[in-house]
Amino acid sequence: MSTKELRDFFHPKSIAIIGASTDFTTISGKPMKNLIHSNFGGEIYPVNPRYDSIEGYKCFDSILDIPGKVDLALIAVSASRLISIMGECISKNVKNILLFSSGFAEIGDSGKKIQDEVAKMAQENDIRIIGPNSVGCLNVKDSIPMGFATSMEAEKGFIRGNIGLVSQSGALGFSVFGLAQEESLGFTYVINTGNEMDITTVDSIEFMLEDDETTVIAAYMEGIPNGEHLITVAKRAKVLRKPLIILKAGKSAIGKEAASSHTASLAGSEEMFQVIAKQYGIITVKDIDEMIDVMKIVSRRKWSNGRKVVTISNSGAAGIAMADFSEEFGLILEPLQGETKDKIDATIPSYGSALNPIDITAQALKEQHILTETVETLVRDDNTDIIVIQTTFGGVLGEQICRSVVEIDKREEKPIIVTVTGTEELTGKGRQVLRESGVPVYKTTYDTMLAVKHLVELSEFYHKETDLSSPVSRAHQPDNVQYKTRVWTEDESKRLLKQLDIRVPENAVIQSVEQIESYVEGLKFPLVAKIISKDILHKTDAGGVKLGVQNIDEAKQAYIDIMEAAKNYNPNAHIQGVLLEEMLNKNGIEMFIGVKSDPQFGSFLVCGLGGIFIEVLKDISIRHIPITKEEAKTMVEELKGYPLLLGTRGQERSDIEAFADALVKISDYVDQQNGTLKEMDINPVVVLNDGEGIIALDGLFVWDEVESAYLVSNQ
Amino acid sequence: MSTKELRDFFHPKSIAIIGASTDFTTISGKPMKNLIHSNFGGEIYPVNPRYDSIEGYKCFDSILDIPGKVDLALIAVSASRLISIMGECISKNVKNILLFSSGFAEIGDSGKKIQDEVAKMAQENDIRIIGPNSVGCLNVKDSIPMGFATSMEAEKGFIRGNIGLVSQSGALGFSVFGLAQEESLGFTYVINTGNEMDITTVDSIEFMLEDDETTVIAAYMEGIPNGEHLITVAKRAKVLRKPLIILKAGKSAIGKEAASSHTASLAGSEEMFQVIAKQYGIITVKDIDEMIDVMKIVSRRKWSNGRKVVTISNSGAAGIAMADFSEEFGLILEPLQGETKDKIDATIPSYGSALNPIDITAQALKEQHILTETVETLVRDDNTDIIVIQTTFGGVLGEQICRSVVEIDKREEKPIIVTVTGTEELTGKGRQVLRESGVPVYKTTYDTMLAVKHLVELSEFYHKETDLSSPVSRAHQPDNVQYKTRVWTEDESKRLLKQLDIRVPENAVIQSVEQIESYVEGLKFPLVAKIISKDILHKTDAGGVKLGVQNIDEAKQAYIDIMEAAKNYNPNAHIQGVLLEEMLNKNGIEMFIGVKSDPQFGSFLVCGLGGIFIEVLKDISIRHIPITKEEAKTMVEELKGYPLLLGTRGQERSDIEAFADALVKISDYVDQQNGTLKEMDINPVVVLNDGEGIIALDGLFVWDEVESAYLVSNQ
Repeated sequence: MSTKELRDFFHPKSIAIIGASTDFTTISGKPMKNLIHSNFGGEIYPVNPRYDSIEGYKCFDSILDIPGKVDLALIAVSASRLISIMGECISKNVKNILLFSSGFAEIGDSGKKIQDEVAKMAQENDIRIIGPNSVGCLNVKDSIPMGFATSMEAEKGFIRGNIGLVSQSGALGFSVFGLAQEESLGFTYVINTGNEMDITTVDSIEFMLEDDETTVIAAYMEGIPNGEHLITVAKRAKVLRKPLIILKAGKSAIGKEAASSHTASLAGSEEMFQVIAKQYGIITVKDIDEMIDVMKIVSRRKWSNGRKVVTISNSGAAGIAMADFSEEFGLILEPLQGETKDKIDATIPSYGSALNPIDITAQALKEQHILTETVETLVRDDNTDIIVIQTTFGGVLGEQICRSVVEIDKREEKPIIVTVTGTEELTGKGRQVLRESGVPVYKTTYDTMLAVKHLVELSEFYHKETDLSSPVSRAHQPDNVQYKTRVWTEDESKRLLKQLDIRVPENAVIQSVEQIESYVEGLKFPLVAKIISKDILHKTDAGGVKLGVQNIDEAKQAYIDIMEAAKNYNPNAHIQGVLLEEMLNKNGIEMFIGVKSDPQFGSFLVCGLGGIFIEVLKDISIRHIPITKEEAKTMVEELKGYPLLLGTRGQERSDIEAFADALVKISDYVDQQNGTLKEMDINPVVVLNDGEGIIALDGLFVWDEVESAYLVSNQ
Repeated sequence: MSTKELRDFFHPKSIAIIGASTDFTTISGKPMKNLIHSNFGGEIYPVNPRYDSIEGYKCFDSILDIPGKVDLALIAVSASRLISIMGECISKNVKNILLFSSGFAEIGDSGKKIQDEVAKMAQENDIRIIGPNSVGCLNVKDSIPMGFATSMEAEKGFIRGNIGLVSQSGALGFSVFGLAQEESLGFTYVINTGNEMDITTVDSIEFMLEDDETTVIAAYMEGIPNGEHLITVAKRAKVLRKPLIILKAGKSAIGKEAASSHTASLAGSEEMFQVIAKQYGIITVKDIDEMIDVMKIVSRRKWSNGRKVVTISNSGAAGIAMADFSEEFGLILEPLQGETKDKIDATIPSYGSALNPIDITAQALKEQHILTETVETLVRDDNTDIIVIQTTFGGVLGEQICRSVVEIDKREEKPIIVTVTGTEELTGKGRQVLRESGVPVYKTTYDTMLAVKHLVELSEFYHKETDLSSPVSRAHQPDNVQYKTRVWTEDESKRLLKQLDIRVPENAVIQSVEQIESYVEGLKFPLVAKIISKDILHKTDAGGVKLGVQNIDEAKQAYIDIMEAAKNYNPNAHIQGVLLEEMLNKNGIEMFIGVKSDPQFGSFLVCGLGGIFIEVLKDISIRHIPITKEEAKTMVEELKGYPLLLGTRGQERSDIEAFADALVKISDYVDQQNGTLKEMDINPVVVLNDGEGIIALDGLFVWDEVESAYLVSNQ
């Protein structure tokens, strides 16, 4: 999709309203009313055979009767009439359609059939569709309302700004827009995608990303239409330094069910989405309040250099709360030192505190200079990354103080965040001054510190070097190929691990008693003997494993016993041989490395410690593939059981470095397989003492059968 | 303290303002202004030798010149003048003093000295003091403002109601009051305790608990003045079914530091406070917003029968969010069934959903009956514990719908909670109708569901039987006795455990080689031999342990070896003998039981699994002593490692019952020791298979030396 196409969609010069109504209180009447009220500069063509004119505009029987070109058709007719209307739009060469109608995929099979037919007609004729089940879209830049949402009626007009908003839900999207405008936040576009027959939330994000005036994008999603696309878009957002805020609904089992009945979308695995968000710098929020709070702080487009916060307040309790929430959100509050502390000490009353939190005392509500001088000092302090001010700012002086904070904020690069507590009656004016100047301002310390946390994390993500150029690894196989699952034997799996330079025990595959003597030459006893057969997955059950084989005679006997047991267990099994393998004679920590394939996002790498850490504590770390070495290390550090690797309990430190290397090797390999590796499990992989490396004791690869991948491991 | 005394404090008939000022914008002027503006019905006596009269009120040179009785003195003079003012108050027989002045304990030693002197004078003369460093108190019931907080100036008067509020911080307390009044919440008293020289937050809670009109109490605390008192008060709150909401600040290390510089209070251990709160039904909140949100829902005084929530919305997205947050907060959303579902199906449009979340569709904004009939049906559904409604309620019809919700809420016992989303402009009136009628109403789904969670947890606490009559176990020893720490030997500890009917290995203490043959009769070999000496705590280091003693000869040799090693290790050690003990020949799960003594709250019981669960995962469960059997079981169930006891990994289930019994036995025993047990550790205690019991392999008791306790174990 080219973003040019969507640009046309949101910048129409002529709009036809099919199914227009003279009753401006109805869904079919409101779009016309909204266009008129907002003084739309282009042509408005109502279409409805029942009227000659609406509000002085000539009303047409059919879209085909319209004399001029139609850039956009708004359609509010019932689903049953849609096919014929589509035909007329095709004849009229309309390229953009916004569908308000409901009664499609969300109501079941009959609706789905119409929806599929309409989609087919659109695709064949290069028509782009938003909806069905959309309340419409709003081009705030040019003040063009295309729909019937209540927020499009705003009498005072709309606040233009730098935020682009897209929402699968119309009610939620325009509710956010309305509330955000009350907070003086300005927008470029508001898009409600509804059922997403064609244009999705991610398409809309992509379009707004390339729009120069849009520098912050927020999205509400009930499902992820295309995981690969979302990742591509998130990478682009980082290149452009345009924060991407996503509220993803349908976390709970019931929520997911409700989501799919709502706009017929499939909510993807919440856990995988959270992994993706963290890895690609998407800011996730829990509700619309938090979304608006984040909009405020990232709209200001000041990134922090670190997480060192200095807080200023004129109430002890507020200072304590700021300290408490800073700690909760991983921000750093260090006591002020040296010149900075001395200067502030000289500024504030003697009974205040120039530590951090700084207590400028209630006197600061009487003397404007106390706050402004304190802020000026902190702006120049290299040890201060973010300045957070809390106070009540009541009355005329409060308003004046706010104006001077605005002045400093305009001039300086350092983020300045303000909490104005107290009733609207007491503090409303100061709050408004800050809001209108774009200074992030909040009503509670909790909301403030949570927003600061998001800013700090985003800034850290921006500062971190990541590979943005490589294509996103594939999640899906081509539709036209049939695959079947193929499970590699332990022997095949281990040969691949060896190729990847991941150590496995020395071994040999024996196909007859006679081979043993020469094949095991060089192997150190004791050995373990295991049956190798695609048809025998549970080796122990089949009597196919023998431990502690001490010499060649025992090896021969083990071979004979195992072959016999295996044949008894499954007479039809195709047996490739018996694996004779050195037993590990070193201690280490048992871990596992796994790969999980997600239908939305492709391959994920998983690691963790074995035993109770997995079975009882579900203690795992997950990343989307590919990962860097640095990320591999972070994965390990995140594990609850990490201290075991560091060597608590009087043990030596384990070779974390080697384990991280193995993670990267697996990641790189999987990344090259085009999504054909369904599942992988190296379990256990024993992490030896530091410097001694790791050793994989077992491996399992499950493929969607593809020749090339198979060949790699057998070459 | 009798609550009668405090009643007099807040219901004065005559008030002297010492240090009154004609400048009504100052701290010393505002209290008088506020009393006049609120039409205080009693006597107002300004005291200041600089004026003859203030606003027509005769101004006195000294409190001693006042002709009538003075019920309450408000004092706004500097700390240095306070001692002489106190003298005058004593002469005048003033019994209640509210101190606005600052410059006391919070500024260091010199201030602390004055504070102590004032406290002494007060105590000797039965004077009660609030402050110093208080902004004042407000008797909302009778509209008597006693202080200078901005919220006391409210021109429109105050909303009376059923909430009592006490805050250590004046800024925070009156900020909560102001914001809550904007939400139409009504109060009885607002008390700011400041430095708490005498009257504390907990005293204030106790006073308000016994006030009939106060049925909800909220408190902001930076430290816990007296843990025992708080628990007593919390128990009483349960008896009276008066919800107790506490915002406790100073969680973080820095916050704690800031707290102690703020009003000179020591923030207690946050973790212990949280344990206390959970155990005694105190609702803890993170900030003032959440405090107000909880006030709303508990002020309505409808308790839920369970945690089954049914949600109604007219937007799909809202339904999803309600489901998501319900799951997050442990609420239960079950699909509707049977008659209830059928009735609602018949009420709502066909494209709605009568499952749960119920989607009544946008049509419900046009037809009032859809929502009200749905609510009426749910009110009668035994499977619905709480009804949560989300919608926008705009315009005249929205207001009407809100009125009908109010009608139902008034009539029915079942909690009905409402979320009104959308801008104030669109939805303000409906919201106001609900607020003024006391229906809990919120702006976001998150806030709503969090409040519902608090309601459900409180209701469950009310339904749960707990022993409220027993006195709170003691935290402190009497001041006038000197204690020294005494550590019991393993032998002493095990004897006590045996007395408590907690199984320990069969054993005997040997003091000579000759004793062995007869003493070990009846013990099963193999045995373990261990040195018993108060002076040798690290037995293994001293060569004082020998495992696997197989027969009497080996036992004799072990005795000789151990005695010799011990003497070499510490020639001056007093040696009580050698413990010969059966070795455990059964498998089980190693756990520990501990007791921790907290200076604020007294004794806590701790349990957990051994090994990595403690060392790496800090996986423990804590309760305040005493506990019931039911609580003991819950403690075990809360452990992350609990599945191990249930027998995952193919193991048998462990004897959880016996372990819980042991917890109760220890709890009961410790409860009787009057806080003299400093520390206790039974580690490991092996939990055998179900039905086989437990066995304590080691035990350590550390006492503040008290004869009686010592005797118990040696009788």
